[in-house]
Amino acid sequence: MTTRPTGAEIVDVVITPIAFADPPLLNSWGVHEPLALRTIVQVVTAHGVVGVGECGGGARRLGQLQQVAPQLVGLTVFDLNGLEQRIADALGADRTKDGSVGQSPAAMATYSPVEVACLDAQGKLLGLRVVDLLGGPVRDRVAYSAYLFYKWAEHPATDDKPAVPDLWGPALDPAGVVAQARAMIDTYGFGSIKLKAGVFPPDEEIAAIQALAEAFPRLPLRIDPNGAWTPQTGIRVGQALAEELEYLEDPSLGRAGMAQVAREVSMPLATNMCVIAFDDIPEALQLGSIGVVLSDHHVWGGLRHSLELAAICRTVGWGMSMHSNSHLGISLAAMTHLGAAVPNLTYACDTHYPWNSESDVIVGGPLQFVDGALLIPDGPGLGVELDPDALARQHELFVATGRTERDDTTYLRTVQPNFDPTLPRY
Amino acid sequence: MTTRPTGAEIVDVVITPIAFADPPLLNSWGVHEPLALRTIVQVVTAHGVVGVGECGGGARRLGQLQQVAPQLVGLTVFDLNGLEQRIADALGADRTKDGSVGQSPAAMATYSPVEVACLDAQGKLLGLRVVDLLGGPVRDRVAYSAYLFYKWAEHPATDDKPAVPDLWGPALDPAGVVAQARAMIDTYGFGSIKLKAGVFPPDEEIAAIQALAEAFPRLPLRIDPNGAWTPQTGIRVGQALAEELEYLEDPSLGRAGMAQVAREVSMPLATNMCVIAFDDIPEALQLGSIGVVLSDHHVWGGLRHSLELAAICRTVGWGMSMHSNSHLGISLAAMTHLGAAVPNLTYACDTHYPWNSESDVIVGGPLQFVDGALLIPDGPGLGVELDPDALARQHELFVATGRTERDDTTYLRTVQPNFDPTLPRY
Repeated sequence: MTTRPTGAEIVDVVITPIAFADPPLLNSWGVHEPLALRTIVQVVTAHGVVGVGECGGGARRLGQLQQVAPQLVGLTVFDLNGLEQRIADALGADRTKDGSVGQSPAAMATYSPVEVACLDAQGKLLGLRVVDLLGGPVRDRVAYSAYLFYKWAEHPATDDKPAVPDLWGPALDPAGVVAQARAMIDTYGFGSIKLKAGVFPPDEEIAAIQALAEAFPRLPLRIDPNGAWTPQTGIRVGQALAEELEYLEDPSLGRAGMAQVAREVSMPLATNMCVIAFDDIPEALQLGSIGVVLSDHHVWGGLRHSLELAAICRTVGWGMSMHSNSHLGISLAAMTHLGAAVPNLTYACDTHYPWNSESDVIVGGPLQFVDGALLIPDGPGLGVELDPDALARQHELFVATGRTERDDTTYLRTVQPNFDPTLPRY
Repeated sequence: MTTRPTGAEIVDVVITPIAFADPPLLNSWGVHEPLALRTIVQVVTAHGVVGVGECGGGARRLGQLQQVAPQLVGLTVFDLNGLEQRIADALGADRTKDGSVGQSPAAMATYSPVEVACLDAQGKLLGLRVVDLLGGPVRDRVAYSAYLFYKWAEHPATDDKPAVPDLWGPALDPAGVVAQARAMIDTYGFGSIKLKAGVFPPDEEIAAIQALAEAFPRLPLRIDPNGAWTPQTGIRVGQALAEELEYLEDPSLGRAGMAQVAREVSMPLATNMCVIAFDDIPEALQLGSIGVVLSDHHVWGGLRHSLELAAICRTVGWGMSMHSNSHLGISLAAMTHLGAAVPNLTYACDTHYPWNSESDVIVGGPLQFVDGALLIPDGPGLGVELDPDALARQHELFVATGRTERDDTTYLRTVQPNFDPTLPRY
């Protein structure tokens, strides 16, 4: 099972946890901490070419990556199926009865940055862009949406650090949300808007969407309370915003609750919570829970499995968009190559990039949106290069924090000691 | 949208219709004619590398290929999505509402040999096997089944040609079927057996399967009447052969009839008739029509769409096997690269190759089965080379026949003038 391009064997997999500045963005389970955690994966080939990938931070994922990394040495960057099987076996994923590898969430999430790094290395070895390895582009630019958050003006002061307002300012009411949208659209040119919700009572969030609709009458709008609402509340909000929303994202927890809302509202329901793995799809189909999947290659096992998800969405008549967590440019490049290769990418993709891009670890500074979209990075591979100094700087920040897991709830409780993250809240 | 490997642009697409010898194999709508029709596609790159593909013959497919071929010039062999869109547009496939290309059966079938030829060219340009372009092998050999047919001893004599018995002999009863199985297994080592049925009254075909089970007690068996039976007959046969069959293939026509049979028999139903496109899947799922899809990259739009089909089968719990029509070695190589990359290939694949391999148009003579399986051809690309002399010979045969369409029914009527192909027959 050898491949001909010499030097494609993996000789090392380098896992680097990093931390980077994050504004105080509110959501249904708390507020973003001052530092977001992330992990950078470098796959080093015998040829010397290095492919890069990026995924979520936190001790569990980091531990799983560190556990599997040595076991990948000796395989080639073209042996994606072999790498996936080896990772699944290492993490104890069950084999299915036909002998193929089980798709455990941990294995899929651990495989994802490895797959992206291997595709990047393939492209660099072959002189091809990642999008060309995915079947070629169906579009030359991928549209992203303005991802609005309720937010504080600043992170609270601590014993050793004063509070320093960030450039975005507060957004705690409709006027603040509209101002944030205007700043983000002026800067990046986004052509659609998503509001992270589930923070304030639903009527306040309905008012925010209505204010956005008035301020940006031509832009598609979405709201995402991350399951903070009962199905009854989800129905009420969906009906109140029938004119304003292109889709309603995760109003309620669970596939049954989502189906209950879906039956009573006019717009499709989108999700990155109740359908997050291939195993979730049959029940969602049966119940009619959703109309749009927010794919996420970090969760769905990389770019090639995301193309499979896209094929399923085409087949069953679901729309497809893209979910995001706090991320940097390697993930954004991967999302863009993928988005350019998915025929049925029916909505602008989510991205947190504007909130975090100043801490990016790629050469040449942050990737630049033009009219709310990214051109496909000109490869080879992902078309981005890791900046070793920037990586070292953000890794030192990770080491210095001593933090190992994201905990939005505990952080919010430093300000609101009685905050209860139990959902549904409204 | 350029790619870096220089010379990957398509400068010519050469379409060559061929004909080759085929034994008198019986099926539910007639009998195979003395010559089978097939089409060879060569995609010529600026670099001089030529990729090859193979698909069904016949005037309609040939005409569609000839129509689209000139329109592919200028695209690169890496731009598979672009080639697919261009073919679909040229053949007037509808665009879906999201703007992505519609998956019309004609477009998928026309795109398939082009995609295979482009993957072959990619592999040749890059020094990679096609399986490596599909994610890498999950197995190093792909198992095939002995594909048995009821058959005559020879094609009937005509005015200018005497009847010449072929080497396989007749198979018109259980003893003949067992003898054919033994010859095929002795020669090729197949480890499972499929009987093409729908030819004789069901009790005779039940007896043939029972005779095979007695003669080959350790080998999995399948029967495929191509929809010749009513659901009631399908249920009766399925119940009679509950111990013998690993699956029952297309006992009845239509997804509703198949679902009716599926509810009353113990083995899964397989199909290459009632689910032959992505659009067929939702209803089959809803009705519970099938348990196994017999994929066919010639029908499903090539190797990458077949991987998407495999992902759907994994997701919904369907098994996956592979269908075949009369074909030569380019198709067999493509089937093997694909089969090696599909984690959930749960059954040995069908192949007509033993019936036709002596007419192959590849260098070095027919591909060789070892213990009923093919090793992945050692690339680059598909790992097979077109023999120009053999191609010219089989093309001359095509021209000489003057035939443009397969017509098993008319051919059987030369012997049985009152033959009625209407199904269900029993």
